[in-house]
Amino acid sequence: MQDRIREILSWYGSDNPGTLTNLARLLNHGALGGTGKLVILPVDQGVEHGPGRSFAPNPPAYDPRYHFELAIDAGLSAYAAPLGFLEASARDYAGDLPLILKLNNRENLHSDADPTQSLTGSIAAALRLGCVGIGYTVYPGSALRQEMYEKLQVLAEEAKRYGLVVVVWSYPRGTDLSKEGETALDVTAYAAQIAAQLGAHVIKVKPPTAHIEQDEARKAYADVSAGTLAECVSHVVQSAFNGRRVVIFSGGPAKGEEEIIEEITGIRDGGGFGSIIGRNAFQRERGQALDLLQRIVGIYADKQ
Amino acid sequence: MQDRIREILSWYGSDNPGTLTNLARLLNHGALGGTGKLVILPVDQGVEHGPGRSFAPNPPAYDPRYHFELAIDAGLSAYAAPLGFLEASARDYAGDLPLILKLNNRENLHSDADPTQSLTGSIAAALRLGCVGIGYTVYPGSALRQEMYEKLQVLAEEAKRYGLVVVVWSYPRGTDLSKEGETALDVTAYAAQIAAQLGAHVIKVKPPTAHIEQDEARKAYADVSAGTLAECVSHVVQSAFNGRRVVIFSGGPAKGEEEIIEEITGIRDGGGFGSIIGRNAFQRERGQALDLLQRIVGIYADKQ
Amino acid sequence: MQDRIREILSWYGSDNPGTLTNLARLLNHGALGGTGKLVILPVDQGVEHGPGRSFAPNPPAYDPRYHFELAIDAGLSAYAAPLGFLEASARDYAGDLPLILKLNNRENLHSDADPTQSLTGSIAAALRLGCVGIGYTVYPGSALRQEMYEKLQVLAEEAKRYGLVVVVWSYPRGTDLSKEGETALDVTAYAAQIAAQLGAHVIKVKPPTAHIEQDEARKAYADVSAGTLAECVSHVVQSAFNGRRVVIFSGGPAKGEEEIIEEITGIRDGGGFGSIIGRNAFQRERGQALDLLQRIVGIYADKQ
Amino acid sequence: MQDRIREILSWYGSDNPGTLTNLARLLNHGALGGTGKLVILPVDQGVEHGPGRSFAPNPPAYDPRYHFELAIDAGLSAYAAPLGFLEASARDYAGDLPLILKLNNRENLHSDADPTQSLTGSIAAALRLGCVGIGYTVYPGSALRQEMYEKLQVLAEEAKRYGLVVVVWSYPRGTDLSKEGETALDVTAYAAQIAAQLGAHVIKVKPPTAHIEQDEARKAYADVSAGTLAECVSHVVQSAFNGRRVVIFSGGPAKGEEEIIEEITGIRDGGGFGSIIGRNAFQRERGQALDLLQRIVGIYADKQ
Amino acid sequence: MQDRIREILSWYGSDNPGTLTNLARLLNHGALGGTGKLVILPVDQGVEHGPGRSFAPNPPAYDPRYHFELAIDAGLSAYAAPLGFLEASARDYAGDLPLILKLNNRENLHSDADPTQSLTGSIAAALRLGCVGIGYTVYPGSALRQEMYEKLQVLAEEAKRYGLVVVVWSYPRGTDLSKEGETALDVTAYAAQIAAQLGAHVIKVKPPTAHIEQDEARKAYADVSAGTLAECVSHVVQSAFNGRRVVIFSGGPAKGEEEIIEEITGIRDGGGFGSIIGRNAFQRERGQALDLLQRIVGIYADKQ
Repeated sequence: MQDRIREILSWYGSDNPGTLTNLARLLNHGALGGTGKLVILPVDQGVEHGPGRSFAPNPPAYDPRYHFELAIDAGLSAYAAPLGFLEASARDYAGDLPLILKLNNRENLHSDADPTQSLTGSIAAALRLGCVGIGYTVYPGSALRQEMYEKLQVLAEEAKRYGLVVVVWSYPRGTDLSKEGETALDVTAYAAQIAAQLGAHVIKVKPPTAHIEQDEARKAYADVSAGTLAECVSHVVQSAFNGRRVVIFSGGPAKGEEEIIEEITGIRDGGGFGSIIGRNAFQRERGQALDLLQRIVGIYADKQ
Repeated sequence: MQDRIREILSWYGSDNPGTLTNLARLLNHGALGGTGKLVILPVDQGVEHGPGRSFAPNPPAYDPRYHFELAIDAGLSAYAAPLGFLEASARDYAGDLPLILKLNNRENLHSDADPTQSLTGSIAAALRLGCVGIGYTVYPGSALRQEMYEKLQVLAEEAKRYGLVVVVWSYPRGTDLSKEGETALDVTAYAAQIAAQLGAHVIKVKPPTAHIEQDEARKAYADVSAGTLAECVSHVVQSAFNGRRVVIFSGGPAKGEEEIIEEITGIRDGGGFGSIIGRNAFQRERGQALDLLQRIVGIYADKQ
Repeated sequence: MQDRIREILSWYGSDNPGTLTNLARLLNHGALGGTGKLVILPVDQGVEHGPGRSFAPNPPAYDPRYHFELAIDAGLSAYAAPLGFLEASARDYAGDLPLILKLNNRENLHSDADPTQSLTGSIAAALRLGCVGIGYTVYPGSALRQEMYEKLQVLAEEAKRYGLVVVVWSYPRGTDLSKEGETALDVTAYAAQIAAQLGAHVIKVKPPTAHIEQDEARKAYADVSAGTLAECVSHVVQSAFNGRRVVIFSGGPAKGEEEIIEEITGIRDGGGFGSIIGRNAFQRERGQALDLLQRIVGIYADKQ
Repeated sequence: MQDRIREILSWYGSDNPGTLTNLARLLNHGALGGTGKLVILPVDQGVEHGPGRSFAPNPPAYDPRYHFELAIDAGLSAYAAPLGFLEASARDYAGDLPLILKLNNRENLHSDADPTQSLTGSIAAALRLGCVGIGYTVYPGSALRQEMYEKLQVLAEEAKRYGLVVVVWSYPRGTDLSKEGETALDVTAYAAQIAAQLGAHVIKVKPPTAHIEQDEARKAYADVSAGTLAECVSHVVQSAFNGRRVVIFSGGPAKGEEEIIEEITGIRDGGGFGSIIGRNAFQRERGQALDLLQRIVGIYADKQ
Repeated sequence: MQDRIREILSWYGSDNPGTLTNLARLLNHGALGGTGKLVILPVDQGVEHGPGRSFAPNPPAYDPRYHFELAIDAGLSAYAAPLGFLEASARDYAGDLPLILKLNNRENLHSDADPTQSLTGSIAAALRLGCVGIGYTVYPGSALRQEMYEKLQVLAEEAKRYGLVVVVWSYPRGTDLSKEGETALDVTAYAAQIAAQLGAHVIKVKPPTAHIEQDEARKAYADVSAGTLAECVSHVVQSAFNGRRVVIFSGGPAKGEEEIIEEITGIRDGGGFGSIIGRNAFQRERGQALDLLQRIVGIYADKQ
């Protein structure tokens, strides 16, 4: 095994060898295997935004097999999805790539100023489907965040007993945060810290902006460099145990390829561990998606 | 076994042979057995609307035996009802037709802008009554939907371990949806997707209209054909894992026979897997109901 | 449903509709479906006698798929086998015929004057494999019989809660019984009674001879007619709750076709409910086996 | 309720009202209802001696319904039988008379110098069959008695939690007892005491003889009157908590009617609470059995 | 994934995707990954024979890290060992190779004509150590075999629920078998069949000889070719569900390299799926062991 992977595993000294084994599987798979970088395909937009908004731009993506094959053919590190999508094809692709069962989800047919998510999967399901880990979203800042944290606590403790990896999506939301504040530097760093303190092995946040949301944080951030995305990312990684937790960044809404490449480059330069690219992958025509993912993987592979 | 049934079973690769066996029983029973199409009789209106509104139009239907016999004599695929109706006659008709225990229900003696349902049955009851599966309603869009999803997650995981089929009624409702929106194309497709992602084997939705409810979905639906019911149904089936989940359509409120026949024809032409016909069956005089059901079954049988 | 099946179900008034449903499935399947007679294919000889002795006479029988297909093609009522054989193909033939998981087995690499069997399956396995029931062997007369009865009590209670049928193989053996005594009339009747009292729904015994084994029973049997196999069978059926339990008879060691046909005829004439034919089926070349099974089924079909 | 029944209930002060309710059902049922006396029909000979020896003398008794009807028509207090016989007809006669599920049984196809019995029923089965109580045999003196006591301990504790009555058959047997000793006065009294100490509510022993089996007991018995059966019975009743436990006596092997009547009279005169009459009832032709049982009931009714 | 691996997975239709995933990991790892062949390093001799007999011939093997590294450096498919050896280094080599926790073991400080093994591990331990499966030994023919089978039944059901692979060592032993009989053709085939029927995914037996042990099997084996090791192996593979279970062969006692190579060649030519080589690997000096293992792997790689 590459030294870098062994080094990353060494950060998780309270986890059992089972969890380290699954973390190693995640870090050793695909085109970035062994580099300490990773790119994951997440497809929970069917629940989050509905099938039309998610898949009509590229209709083959209605089929659950499409996403397994996209992730495999693009050499990605893992595929993360809700119960139904994994159940639909886990037997057909068993052993082909690491799977992450997204345990909670939220549909947007009802608007909630202070949102939460519902449990739609379980540790038992993750094990019977052969997943390397579970995924779970928290909304720091939501009035309902505490119930989210408490459910995660129970699930993560159970996951770790069975040797699974815990991946936490940490997305600040809620009535006390401005829209801009959801990706503010102080808030994103805060979100990464919360996920790390909740016991996440892998943390997913949104790419931070230089905006500072909290008045009480402004003084502390006076000397934090935030001139570039790379500097902002660097602070977020620092905020997750000084770089001793794997922090990856979401791709966000669909956008142009060059814009994406620029963002990925910034994440890499700031020491981000990788990306989790959903809509920007599966909403493109398959050939274009594979080209884009190859470029992204190439950026992360450049610099170890 | 017919190739079409074996093909449908192949979509459920994460389920055990027990669940596949019960799914095969459902798909092989009655006049449509072996075609891959199915028509189910559901009778939960006693709880939903009260006995007078439900059964006074056809008083023999007050008797629980009536519905078993109607489903048997019409050659339907299965009979779905709440605990009491099944307990009342499951012994008398044991082995005569597949049963589905509707696990949650809602009475309308209290109005709720954001409705939910109550658990009125259990996996243990489904097994002791000899059911092939469980039925469960979710209300996507309701403020209380998340608790509904979480209870379903626990029940479905247990049901699958014991080899039962999971049938999900997915009916959008709630304060953020207009009345017209409850059957909008985007919303119905969304409801089908949610049920599929929650791990449903069989999904029941209402026949969709061409209306688009969500502003943010309008762009995605610009290129989705919705000129006919068949086209709308086709999109809903596509939205349930590209046709790799069994999607059936409710009959809705009582209406004229020709109107029903036209609707069923549209569902069939759009690739729907069948219908679940309650009030339009049991609120008609028995002879008329049998005639109507025979016509419906005939339509589905025409085209495999 | 045929009246005869409804009549048989009426004997099991303490069972829930789930068990009645599975019993109905067993009695309604195959060429004898609806007659109240049944012929089951059991294949546990791989464990009982080893693979060479069992399958070398007809090598295709080494393959687990062979037995599923033999039972299906011969129109038999069910297929009974240990865990491994069912696990090997239950998915491939899901829904094609009723399965019975044989829960205990015995290999003969060690001789035991007072034998017992080992649990090699569970109720959980029976449910996940989609079985209609469980099979369990007791050895009345063995010094170890009591442990066998007690394990059966626990398993049968659990099976009935989940709606499964309990089939008991009741084979007298042990140091106090002579070889001839194992199939004596008094002993076979006793074995049938024990299985019935233990709560079996279906009882499998060996065809009885006219021999009386127990001195203390000789007086009681002075007036019991035992001149023919039919008369002996009639007493055994009477001994199982006066004919109110389904009693079927094993085929025993491989033998000539006419000898088998004569025995089957005697069982039928005595009111036996059917046969469970293993070695005489799968150790014959497939074409011959199908011919023989067709004749056997024909005999049972003649007389209801 | 009769004062006598209230008085008897008062002896069971550690039992919950549920158990007292079931005990009252037992004591208030049938021709002896309210007298504090009881006559029970037990039918476990099918297992104990085989069906031929048990039922060939009166063939209608092969049918499980026969015994329910005999007990009902004779106005008996209860019917006690193993699982199979109760399961066969408990639904048909539900509510017609108190049932006692005999939880352990022994077949005699293997001889054991130190016998034991097998559990063939459970508390769960007793509850689902609507029994007022459980029956359980112990063999004081058998080398295997301790396992029997320990199983009873667990079952009785569970039975009492669920409000069931515990009836203990206490039959001394084993290699250290002579045949005559099994019904010796000291041994029978000892057996009654053991059952009482094990927590039995109702105790069944064999009618005692005046024989003293144990040398070490001889001195103590020098002054115990044992000239008549009544005197012997009186000592046994005294030995069961000075008459504050219900002690009933078995009828033993089939014998002449006058012999039976004399024995019953002795039991009554000695203060016995009643009889449990199996073979002497069901092995007689039905008319004769009803006559005999009427006489027996009459004897107990004479004297309160 | 290679077609051959997908084909092998297709034989396990009753297993969940989790178990298939771990089976794929086993079959895709190391120098033979993707070929459908495998070579496993087992080190349980420390318990079986004591450390001196096991490790003194090659003292570095006292160190638990030695075996992990030997298996990794030789490109083997997996490493199997008891709890202690895996616990000692599973963290250090997490992710480096598939591990199998040997769940039962036997030390030889007490001689037993009818041996058994003790549970020294658990499913929970296998999961926390990151194993792909469990190993379990049965001794067909031992008087204590039945308890071994029953424990395996419970463990295998649990292992399969959690997605683990079940590897069964099936080694006939006991008072009714001669020493020569333990590896007789009929007995080895029997052992393979028993393991398959018990639900094993991978079966380990000893290389069979042409000897026939059981008189009653002699006739059946008259036409079974047994002239070469390849022919004998072919029959054993046939005996494990006609080649539809993975059967591998132990290396047995230490011996000369050419003798080993000849044996491996015979196993391969007979259609064996691979070898499990313990003493012949770790009791050789490391350089020699690597050379030997490379030759063995080469033989299996030659012919798919």
